[in-house]
Formats: sequence, structure tokens, C-alpha cells
Amino acid sequence: MRYDWISFTTDYGLEDPFVGICHGVIARIASTARIIDLSHTVPPGEIRHGAFTLAQAVRYLPPAVHLAVVDPGVGTARRAVAVVARDGLLVGPDNGLLLAAAAELGGALAAYELREPEYRLPDVSATFHGRDIFAPAAAHLATGVPPERLGPAVGVRELERVSAPAPTVRLGAITTEVLMIDHFGNIQLAARAGTLADAGFDEGQQVTIHMGEARHIAVLGRTFEDVENGELILLVDSAGMLALAINGASAATKLGLVRGHFPECVISGPYG
Amino acid sequence: MRYDWISFTTDYGLEDPFVGICHGVIARIASTARIIDLSHTVPPGEIRHGAFTLAQAVRYLPPAVHLAVVDPGVGTARRAVAVVARDGLLVGPDNGLLLAAAAELGGALAAYELREPEYRLPDVSATFHGRDIFAPAAAHLATGVPPERLGPAVGVRELERVSAPAPTVRLGAITTEVLMIDHFGNIQLAARAGTLADAGFDEGQQVTIHMGEARHIAVLGRTFEDVENGELILLVDSAGMLALAINGASAATKLGLVRGHFPECVISGPYG
Amino acid sequence: MRYDWISFTTDYGLEDPFVGICHGVIARIASTARIIDLSHTVPPGEIRHGAFTLAQAVRYLPPAVHLAVVDPGVGTARRAVAVVARDGLLVGPDNGLLLAAAAELGGALAAYELREPEYRLPDVSATFHGRDIFAPAAAHLATGVPPERLGPAVGVRELERVSAPAPTVRLGAITTEVLMIDHFGNIQLAARAGTLADAGFDEGQQVTIHMGEARHIAVLGRTFEDVENGELILLVDSAGMLALAINGASAATKLGLVRGHFPECVISGPYG
Repeated sequence: MRYDWISFTTDYGLEDPFVGICHGVIARIASTARIIDLSHTVPPGEIRHGAFTLAQAVRYLPPAVHLAVVDPGVGTARRAVAVVARDGLLVGPDNGLLLAAAAELGGALAAYELREPEYRLPDVSATFHGRDIFAPAAAHLATGVPPERLGPAVGVRELERVSAPAPTVRLGAITTEVLMIDHFGNIQLAARAGTLADAGFDEGQQVTIHMGEARHIAVLGRTFEDVENGELILLVDSAGMLALAINGASAATKLGLVRGHFPECVISGPYG
Repeated sequence: MRYDWISFTTDYGLEDPFVGICHGVIARIASTARIIDLSHTVPPGEIRHGAFTLAQAVRYLPPAVHLAVVDPGVGTARRAVAVVARDGLLVGPDNGLLLAAAAELGGALAAYELREPEYRLPDVSATFHGRDIFAPAAAHLATGVPPERLGPAVGVRELERVSAPAPTVRLGAITTEVLMIDHFGNIQLAARAGTLADAGFDEGQQVTIHMGEARHIAVLGRTFEDVENGELILLVDSAGMLALAINGASAATKLGLVRGHFPECVISGPYG
Repeated sequence: MRYDWISFTTDYGLEDPFVGICHGVIARIASTARIIDLSHTVPPGEIRHGAFTLAQAVRYLPPAVHLAVVDPGVGTARRAVAVVARDGLLVGPDNGLLLAAAAELGGALAAYELREPEYRLPDVSATFHGRDIFAPAAAHLATGVPPERLGPAVGVRELERVSAPAPTVRLGAITTEVLMIDHFGNIQLAARAGTLADAGFDEGQQVTIHMGEARHIAVLGRTFEDVENGELILLVDSAGMLALAINGASAATKLGLVRGHFPECVISGPYG
């Protein structure tokens, strides 16, 4: 099976030519493949952030080989893999980055270790497997090379996965974690829309947000402008997750969140 | 009419997969359309910045559907529209973002509200209309769907527009505003090249720049290297607008400009 | 000869529509050409950084016209040129930006000054030659216009070049310079892998890094995880150059390097 599209997600940043070099490697192997860059500014080495970024995007993409590289263990014994999902292929390090997206694509059916030299660049560096192993594999898969040609099968149950933290919900309180902070400073929580009803919360009501030592009052609303400028709102975001936002400003800044040190978040009734 | 190209301008930033998700939505609907990303780092919610960014770019692009989303009112009653201009189509929120570009494209001839569910994604979120409404509309238009199919007509005169601030020019003085600051710290003013002659200024002469409380001496030149390193120059920029620049440094930093709080700018004779 | 691909490297940044406008100019001239963006965040005006960025990338790209614009002298007498290399074409200012890449492409064979008005935009601004001169030239070359049509020949020996600083190697010591710092804070040095053997250093041994006033101990390793988190490692990077890195952190931050003021670097035996 051939794929017209390759999606591409990394923590390579935009300062260096790393992303463009991978585009070049792909172009030399799969000259008609088209690339959709999802994000190249996953915080360096943050596998969990990369995994959820990719998982929340794949359902909106055309059928594709999903190439993802957030790989703090590059050059070590961690495996490089191709994962066959029901609705697409995934290529990247076996460190948890790929399986949340595979689940969104109908589940992982098989996996193969990227060991066959024919589908790598001739010289494999110790530090840039995106260029030397992952991009060539994705490109060859896009041209129709069967995944099992890339190397030995790996049991799907043996693959690394990142834990999706489960919220605790009781009447009047949701205890959850911060998943990601976006460009606008909106804070995405690890609780789905349905937890609001499970906790007995209603649109328009006030809730208290406990984050570390601090407490904040938020309104449970539907869209940013349901509150005044500067006020905190708890809403369901575009990925179907609960999120904290401020109309016209950054909720992450107001709540003093620092990347990589997210405190637990408790949402309770206004006097909870 | 079909369009091979879609231009794309937002304030989504580059940290998140929002831009890539919209590319994916477009790819699923208009698989052969090619996208030119103009900017995704319009300052969050700054409609005016987005409007002038798009307006100054469109004349250099091939015939296209111009998709633009700077949309602080997402999820509220503000309309989502497609605007038919003489030389292209525009898609975005009806908040002033589109009409300066429509004028550059020969003028707005008609507009339609994006209400027809067939040309939206099946589930429309409250916070990501770029993905759910605007990108699908742009993609369908690129495939040749007539704009009037997308929803009811809106009078062109009813559309929101941002005011292009007019400079005041008299002999020896130009009073104007800051339009935008670019990556290099060059300060673009809201006065066209012709105002220099109207004010009686000559190339090579010194002028005084009054910005808030501060005064600065600038030389009226043609290119950055017409002044010494570190000196301020007033020139005509690549969009045909007056701009303040410093050879080898940021004029915005030197003049202490802070985004969103631009003081009025008066250009006068050296002892004005 | 026609080219399907144009690579594109600038210091234009990602805040403004400059890059997208050049994509548009190319699309209008060479509608089927595909663009690989290598980097648009070369530090403003840093020709040397741009030159090495391009040179280290070209071997991974398909046959292409390589368009590069880092051009602090825009609008002055510096020449605009097309350079014919054995394995591709290069277009940009004649300020040293292109020749290191030309060497990687088999060497510069001929060069032409971009003077022919037919292959420029009708109006050439004083400040945006990327849009008005370089992008149109690259696009016309991609469509098969012979380079000699673009303007008069320039002797290859007359072209500006940036000096690739040569390291000094003796038994037990390498004296070199910093070439570039990447997104992860890895410090690339101007010494190739082979200098390690020339200096008699062995994998796994400790070396002392002298940078300005400071001294640091580093381990000579193969990959980031050959040292503990937070420790300094000297390795061969993906471009085949020596580089200083820290597992899980920024070496540039730890060593206090500030862009544009790189001290000399001496690598010596542990008690050197």
C-alpha cells in the first residue's frame, strides 16, 4: 500500500536545518510524497507532550505515514520501530511516542524494528536518527515497501507506552493533571468533557481551581468570550479535553505554570 | 472556478499542531491544493496586524483562496465569511481581517456567511473554527464549490473593516502611526512613500523622529547601509511604506517600542 | 536543465510574511517547483552561520536550485549571483554565503550576476531582494532558463567566500573555534572527526575543554547517553564535526556561550 502523505512531528526546533534535511531525505526516496509538518517545537525530549500532540492530530489528517521523532535516547539501545495501525503507519523511536496515536488510528496491529540497512542511509550517525533511520523508513513505507521488510517483528505488547493519567471524579470534584500548555497559554487537562457531568457541574457555574498552593475562581463556560477579559474560564477544548483559559491573556502565565513542573489540578465547587 | 493555491495566515503560533491539523483538513478535502503559509505568528488576537500582513502579501501570490484566522471572538456571534474579490477569494472571521487584502485584490464583490453544514466538519468545536469551519470552507472553494453554496449572502458594506490610519502631512512634518514591527525590529509606519515629497523632505537630509516623550535623529535614506552601523534611518520599505530602521540592529529595541502600545510618530525637520 | 526542487535558507525569521511572499513569487514563475525550507532563523546578518547551515545540508537534498538570502548588504553594491556547481545551482548575494555549499556540491564551475531585468520582478525595492531578485532568479532557473541568461559571467575566483577556520592539532591538544550552536544547545566546533585520532585521543577518555577563562572536564563519547545527565560530552556530531553536548541540557548555556562572541576552544588531555 502506498501513501501520498507523511506527517512529521519532532522536537528539532526551527532554528536549525534538521527538519529541512529530513524533508530532503524523504524527497530523494519518495519524490511525490507530500509532508504535513505537525509540530517541530515539542519541548526537547518531552515524549509525553509529543505523544499527545500527535494523538490529538491524526484523526484530522489524510491516510499517512506518521513520522515522529522525540528521542532523548538516540544512539542507545532503544528500538527504532514502524507500527502498523488499522488506519495508517507510524515511524519513530520505541519510547512511548507512537502508541497513543496508534490507538486513535484504530489500534496497533503489528510492529517491526528498523534494522534492515537497505532502508537506512548508508552512514548512520550516533545522534541524528531522524535523518539516517526514521525519515528513510517513512519514505520507503510511503512508496509502498511492506513494513515487514524493514526488520524483525516486535510484539505490540512489548512496545513502550506513556501513561495517560486518569482523572479521579466524584460529585463536586475532579482531580486531574495538566497535559499540555498551548501557544495561547491555554492549559489542557487530562480529563475529558464527560467528567464535568459526572462531577455534577453545570455550564455557567463557578468552580474553584486548586493548583499547588494557589486557588482561583473559574467560570464553567463554552467559549472564551463567555467571561470578561482577564477572567478564568474552564471549557471543553478542541480536542474534547477540559482546559483552563483566560479571555485575551495566558492562563499559564496567570496561574504561574512552568513547563515540566505541573502541579496536580483539583476542580471543586466554588467553596470546595 | 478552481484554485491550485491556498494561502494561510493565522495567530496560531508554531508550538502546537494547530497549523498542521488545518493542513490535514485541507488535504482531505482538496488533495491537490498547495498551501503557502504566510505567517502563523501574527501576535495573538491582533486583527490589525493580521489584516496588514495579508494585504501586503497578496499581490505577490498566485491566484488563491486566502485563508486567514485571527479570531479573538471565536465561538461568539461574529460571522464566519467567504469574500469574493476580483482576483481571488478570502475566507475567515468577519472582524476586519479580510477587507484590506480584498482591496488589494481588486475589491470585494460579494460575501457569504459560512453556515452550510455540508462544508464544515461534522462536529464544530467552540474554540477551533480554523479547523472546523474556515479550513474546510477554503478547501471546498479551492475544489471549485461556488461561494454562494456556503451560506447566505452578506452585503459587502456590512462587513467589518479595520481603519487604515491616515497620516497628517504638512510642509516639514508627517504625523502618523506605527503599523507593524518586523523580525529585524524595523518599524513600519502608516504613511506611504509619497508623503515624503508632500512634506518637502529630500533623500540624505536629517529628520527628527518624535515617539512619545523621546526624540531621535534619523537620516532619510534609501537602504540600510546609507547610514553607519547603529544609526537610525528613515526609508521606504518593501511594501512601499515609510519605515524606521537601524543598520545592523533593531530600531524597535532602540526606540523602546513595546508591542500593542505604539505611540504616535511625528517626523519633522531636524529642528522641528 | 530543469529542477523539481528549490531549497530555501534565510535569516528572515518566522514572524513576518517574508518567506511566504517568496514562496508566492516562486509559485507564479515555477508553478510545479517544490520548496524545501532549510532554515529561516539564521541569526540576522550572520553570513557564516548561514553558509555552514547550507553546506551541511545540501548533500541530503535532491538535485535543486539552492536559494539562500542572508544579506546585510541588501541594496548596496554587493553582487547578486547564480553559481553553477557540479551537482546543483545556488542563488544569493555574493557575500560568502554560497561557496561552502558549492564545494559540497562538487565545486563552483561558473557564476553569473543577476542583472537581466527579465528575470527580476518589475519593481526592485531597496530592501527586499529576496522577493525582487533572488526568488525570481531561482524560480526561472528551476524552469530551465540557462544560468548565463541571467546576466554577465563573474569569475569563480572573484566570488566572496567565508573562511572555514582550520583547527591546530598536535599530540594531546586541538585548538579550534565554535562554528554554530544548535536548538538543543549543542556546540559544533570547526574540527572534523579525524582530528581526535590525530591528537591521540581515545573514546571514553577525559579531556579538558578550555573556553575563554573557563575550564570544563568532558568525556569523549559516541552518543549523549554515554555520560550521566548533566555531564559534558565531546562527540562527533551528525555533520561529522566535533561537538560539545550535555545529556539532557544545553551545553551552550552551561558553558556561558553568547551568540556572536565565541571564544577559542582548546581540547587537551585531562591535566593539559
